[in-house]
Amino acid sequence: MRFRLTPRETSFYDLFAISADNVLSGSKLLMELLAAEPATRVEIADRMRAAEHAGDDATHAIFHQLNSSFITPFDREDIYRLASRLDDIMDFMEEAVDLVVLYELQELPKGVAQQIEVLHRAAELTAEAMPHLRTMEHLNEYWIEVNRLENQADQIHRKLLAHLFNGTYEAIEVMKLKQVVDVLEEAADAFEAVANTVETIVVKES
Amino acid sequence: MRFRLTPRETSFYDLFAISADNVLSGSKLLMELLAAEPATRVEIADRMRAAEHAGDDATHAIFHQLNSSFITPFDREDIYRLASRLDDIMDFMEEAVDLVVLYELQELPKGVAQQIEVLHRAAELTAEAMPHLRTMEHLNEYWIEVNRLENQADQIHRKLLAHLFNGTYEAIEVMKLKQVVDVLEEAADAFEAVANTVETIVVKES
Amino acid sequence: MRFRLTPRETSFYDLFAISADNVLSGSKLLMELLAAEPATRVEIADRMRAAEHAGDDATHAIFHQLNSSFITPFDREDIYRLASRLDDIMDFMEEAVDLVVLYELQELPKGVAQQIEVLHRAAELTAEAMPHLRTMEHLNEYWIEVNRLENQADQIHRKLLAHLFNGTYEAIEVMKLKQVVDVLEEAADAFEAVANTVETIVVKES
Repeated sequence: MRFRLTPRETSFYDLFAISADNVLSGSKLLMELLAAEPATRVEIADRMRAAEHAGDDATHAIFHQLNSSFITPFDREDIYRLASRLDDIMDFMEEAVDLVVLYELQELPKGVAQQIEVLHRAAELTAEAMPHLRTMEHLNEYWIEVNRLENQADQIHRKLLAHLFNGTYEAIEVMKLKQVVDVLEEAADAFEAVANTVETIVVKES
Repeated sequence: MRFRLTPRETSFYDLFAISADNVLSGSKLLMELLAAEPATRVEIADRMRAAEHAGDDATHAIFHQLNSSFITPFDREDIYRLASRLDDIMDFMEEAVDLVVLYELQELPKGVAQQIEVLHRAAELTAEAMPHLRTMEHLNEYWIEVNRLENQADQIHRKLLAHLFNGTYEAIEVMKLKQVVDVLEEAADAFEAVANTVETIVVKES
Repeated sequence: MRFRLTPRETSFYDLFAISADNVLSGSKLLMELLAAEPATRVEIADRMRAAEHAGDDATHAIFHQLNSSFITPFDREDIYRLASRLDDIMDFMEEAVDLVVLYELQELPKGVAQQIEVLHRAAELTAEAMPHLRTMEHLNEYWIEVNRLENQADQIHRKLLAHLFNGTYEAIEVMKLKQVVDVLEEAADAFEAVANTVETIVVKES
């Protein structure tokens, strides 16, 4: 038996929605990064760091709530996993921006823009999906689509690796760029992990 | 109190056996890769991808069963971990083949053959061990031997790293080969993680 | 209701203290590494390997105790996580020493000394904190300070990456050094994970 609408539990839903909205803000900053002149990237990195801190606060609030709640709207381990994976996405996105600034990368390969567009679409779907955890409806489309996006991200990532190693770039440049494309791929994987956790929650409830 | 032989629980055992048999098929494909001309590697990569998808199906079936079962033959977290780690092995093996094809690597260092032979032996032992989960017998030898193989894989991996960085290879080539040998080492670690999970299950039952 | 002082549970506290003391021994060996001539590094690596094995034994004892205990002093998953993260720290520290020897690195960049000093301070705090798990007192200062140290380690790591890629080093040398500084950064992250697990335990108890 579950008690869905007590104030305490409601706030889990609110906190997940806040965390996912924050991820969406992060993905918008990645889109800005693509269009930005190298000189303005530092300012974008600052805003990304602020977004990442806001995400940490949301994650921390969920863990605190989890540790002090006797009744939870779904399994504790799933709440823990969902919050952790949302937090991972922010960490990876922030790391990507940070590396671009730190290594003073100039032009980014076209595939990086494609990676970021996929991440942005996944972020939109994730932010739309979180409020549906309350009713557990309309979540199938979400996780199917995010799994499809992750496959697409995989293909883009593979092509990028082949491109980086095809002899165009010097070894040091390959190392720098590879770190960026790998961390963006990790962000895509983390979106899929969030979607799979949501699927687990829905299956248990059905 | 446990109910060992109901149909529902039986299928967990069957699913783990299917998953481990699939890992064994993957390790055979790695062995084929060693003997194959570069031109035929693409076809091996295709079959590896099919094996990896079959593995995903088995993992998914275990998770679905887990989420919809009230009684499980052993602790839920151990079932989750065992299925996840078996799935990890397939992912790492598939990634190794994929990278060899993607980077159009020509001759592989001898140590790679040694890595793959150790993985194949670990896969045979794992596939033999899974059916013993039902009776919990004869599993000691299995996990001791897999831990020994993982130590051996560690030594091979270390020697390979020293070899890659000894000045024989160009930097770009080192980067490509290092990805392959590292992911094969991760596969060896994942076999050990499977064995350690089996040990945990046996200890809890005894 | 909890039974804090039975012999069985007492030994969890003892085992965590042993594991953290062992981590402190490991961090002292890292400090020795900094001062050592390259020729004496092999001997330090041998002692590090012995310390890592001692850590494995402590971890194994905790898992064995966990799997065979009906009543535990705090949540099983937190005991599992705390033991695993302490074990991770030793693994990362041992890997760092191992890589320095394996790659026959000569002079290490100054930032590496800073990384190790931060790890050593975190190890001292962690070893001091573990005995306080019994009373759950004085742990706030510990985890706040370790989180601060992890931020400091992050900054040092970032500066090291910028330094490695600034054109001073050849590509192969960058790859070798990057592995060392990355694994030391992973050790810092693992100290934070230990501290966060301790915080979780304290919050649940309060």
